Amino acid sequence: MNQSAAVNSAEIKSAEIICVGSELLLGDIVNGNARYLAQQLASLGIAHHYQTVVGDNPTRIKRAVAIACERARLIIFTGGLGPTPDDLTLVTLADFFDADLSERPEVVKDLQEKFARRGRSLSANSRRQAQLPDGADVLPNPVGTAPGVIWEPRQGLIVMTFPGVPWEMKAMWEATAVPYLRDRGWANGIIHSHMLKFWGIGESTLAETVAPFLDADNPTVATYALGGEVKLRISAKADSVEAANELIDPVAAEIRRLTGTTCYGQDSDSLASVVGQQLAMRGETLSVAESCTGGGLGRLITSVSGSSSYFWGGVISYDNRVKQGVLGVDADVLARYGAVSDEVACGMAKGVRDRLNTDWGISITGIAGPDGGSEQKPVGLVYIGISSAKGTRSQKHLFGQQLTRDQIRDRSAQSALNLLRLALLGQND
Amino acid sequence: MNQSAAVNSAEIKSAEIICVGSELLLGDIVNGNARYLAQQLASLGIAHHYQTVVGDNPTRIKRAVAIACERARLIIFTGGLGPTPDDLTLVTLADFFDADLSERPEVVKDLQEKFARRGRSLSANSRRQAQLPDGADVLPNPVGTAPGVIWEPRQGLIVMTFPGVPWEMKAMWEATAVPYLRDRGWANGIIHSHMLKFWGIGESTLAETVAPFLDADNPTVATYALGGEVKLRISAKADSVEAANELIDPVAAEIRRLTGTTCYGQDSDSLASVVGQQLAMRGETLSVAESCTGGGLGRLITSVSGSSSYFWGGVISYDNRVKQGVLGVDADVLARYGAVSDEVACGMAKGVRDRLNTDWGISITGIAGPDGGSEQKPVGLVYIGISSAKGTRSQKHLFGQQLTRDQIRDRSAQSALNLLRLALLGQND
Repeated sequence: MNQSAAVNSAEIKSAEIICVGSELLLGDIVNGNARYLAQQLASLGIAHHYQTVVGDNPTRIKRAVAIACERARLIIFTGGLGPTPDDLTLVTLADFFDADLSERPEVVKDLQEKFARRGRSLSANSRRQAQLPDGADVLPNPVGTAPGVIWEPRQGLIVMTFPGVPWEMKAMWEATAVPYLRDRGWANGIIHSHMLKFWGIGESTLAETVAPFLDADNPTVATYALGGEVKLRISAKADSVEAANELIDPVAAEIRRLTGTTCYGQDSDSLASVVGQQLAMRGETLSVAESCTGGGLGRLITSVSGSSSYFWGGVISYDNRVKQGVLGVDADVLARYGAVSDEVACGMAKGVRDRLNTDWGISITGIAGPDGGSEQKPVGLVYIGISSAKGTRSQKHLFGQQLTRDQIRDRSAQSALNLLRLALLGQND
Repeated sequence: MNQSAAVNSAEIKSAEIICVGSELLLGDIVNGNARYLAQQLASLGIAHHYQTVVGDNPTRIKRAVAIACERARLIIFTGGLGPTPDDLTLVTLADFFDADLSERPEVVKDLQEKFARRGRSLSANSRRQAQLPDGADVLPNPVGTAPGVIWEPRQGLIVMTFPGVPWEMKAMWEATAVPYLRDRGWANGIIHSHMLKFWGIGESTLAETVAPFLDADNPTVATYALGGEVKLRISAKADSVEAANELIDPVAAEIRRLTGTTCYGQDSDSLASVVGQQLAMRGETLSVAESCTGGGLGRLITSVSGSSSYFWGGVISYDNRVKQGVLGVDADVLARYGAVSDEVACGMAKGVRDRLNTDWGISITGIAGPDGGSEQKPVGLVYIGISSAKGTRSQKHLFGQQLTRDQIRDRSAQSALNLLRLALLGQND
């Protein structure tokens, strides 16, 4: 098959990622390296159209290289640089590009020093890592043993190799590969992104609300849904972060106007961090009472460093004896309405707020499944209670039965934070 | 480039995974679908030599298909099946294989019913999902809207398409694709694995302990470390699960003998499920008192369905007022030793056990960081308390400072479960 004729020049000034490793083909590990490199290429504004995964097999590695040479000018390898017989990347590349391998004295010295620091001597296998293709530059490994190469085996074709160990690959990419690519004009422009985050709106409704922006070219706008949260990313291509933000800011402002309070934050914000900021600003305190989430709400709240300034704690009232004994929920109410009810959610929220003496109390009681559901109270039925000086009330949720136990628990905890967020904003539906 | 001549027949009876989606090329998401499918192919004994990632671009998708046709007989696509204009997989495949698309009435009916259940009518965009290539079979989607196809567009070439949404892809793979492949003789042999799980032993120590097994061919033995836990996988290739287990069982028994109580379980076991089984068997009950984990320990315990039979609940005593007021930790003890101390961990464990009237009480108090550490009490210092009728004591941990806040919190909660596990086994170090 000859595809070369169809390849245009824009295509060729692009990168391809080739990840070498049978552990990827066996599904032992997820390909986090490809994701990291993809993010990095995007942020440098380097086009990148294909990723290939191939096992530790010289013939197949060579085929993958041959294909990549046809469609990219920068080929980035991860994996296959270590000391074991399975580590074939450099031997195979040297063979493919008709180069000899020779031992680099400076790499041997570096390896010997690294081994000596661990009280070991350099084995013959490990010394093999100093064998690099002639003509290739060493890509130093500041945090591990195996170095990589930066190599131009043909005019206009750059090959970079990295180990498969993620932190070694990242350290080498940042210290050496990025400056190299910037120096050689690969990363003139940049792609800069701004993420808006939403709770309480579905992806399709959000997409309809912001429809005109979804067709735009620069900045581009795209939506993503995961675990009940919807995100919207605004990405601009420009010469600098400042120039990108000039394109992004007016779009972000208009989208925020269109979406109102469903947009809870941006970038690294979480519902827990946003609620925490509001509480800290107002000097108010919070406690939680959890049944089906078993502590998951408290865990989310305390995932925010500094949460001790507004979060005092809570009660995990998994058993009804704890709802009664510690939170003071009335035994009659429990017997009459059942643990998963508006009345008990309110009793828990008010109980923990009184017991721990905080400004706000929120509670969760529900049926996370897979067992314990009934016709009247199916799996996914969750009541979230909220109590403050203004009063106590609850909100009923019915999470879909296709969700797992952990998903129902996680969405319950996030929904509780969202209820508190809207209450703090002074507007609740 | 013509590689066809080099392709041998063994190569051709293999699968290739093609993941379509610009979000993968931008690094927005990690390619978990490729990992899942790789694991599945391995467990079915289907050879799989390449994975390709390509963006939402018809020209490049077609090039990837052309290459895959040369080197595989089963091409598995994920992504690009949804209702938006970016979803191009089926249109592009139809074009590549010179097939027409036509609307399938049974798919339209299924879509209409699914939308009706959500109280919505089928939009024109969503209806487009019913357009499938002529000659392709519908691959039903039991949990979402977009169906896939199973198609033999050329003699001896099978194409399968799945949505990018992981749980839809998995449900469709399991319900339809696996039986299809088994029926057609793709999955003759199998690779069956057995996972052993360890806590309280490092990966290198484990590898040394089981060294002779690491070089074996069938079954193979490999170790994996993640988040403080170490796993060991024993994989055998055989004609049936039973035959594989005959190879695996003696190796597993010997490894369990060599590793003693550091091996806490197998396969789908978690520390929480193993501890839960022990408690349920003994008819004993548990409560927790959490400071730095903020509810994470309770959440782990209640991630096990049925945990209500032994877990009564707990107290999140994030603030010292809660440690004092609800758990009854002495104010003098808090003042003299500080909240992160052996004395307070013991007071919390005994306090929650007394307060909630359970057989066991476990507690966690520590410094999760990134702030709040000091020279005497650095970030990562955690005390875990345990209380039963036999008495109350605590265990000191110092988690490395390279760990994040969430990692320290998670390891603290898991370590607390492990302490309880060893106490239930009657042997604690």
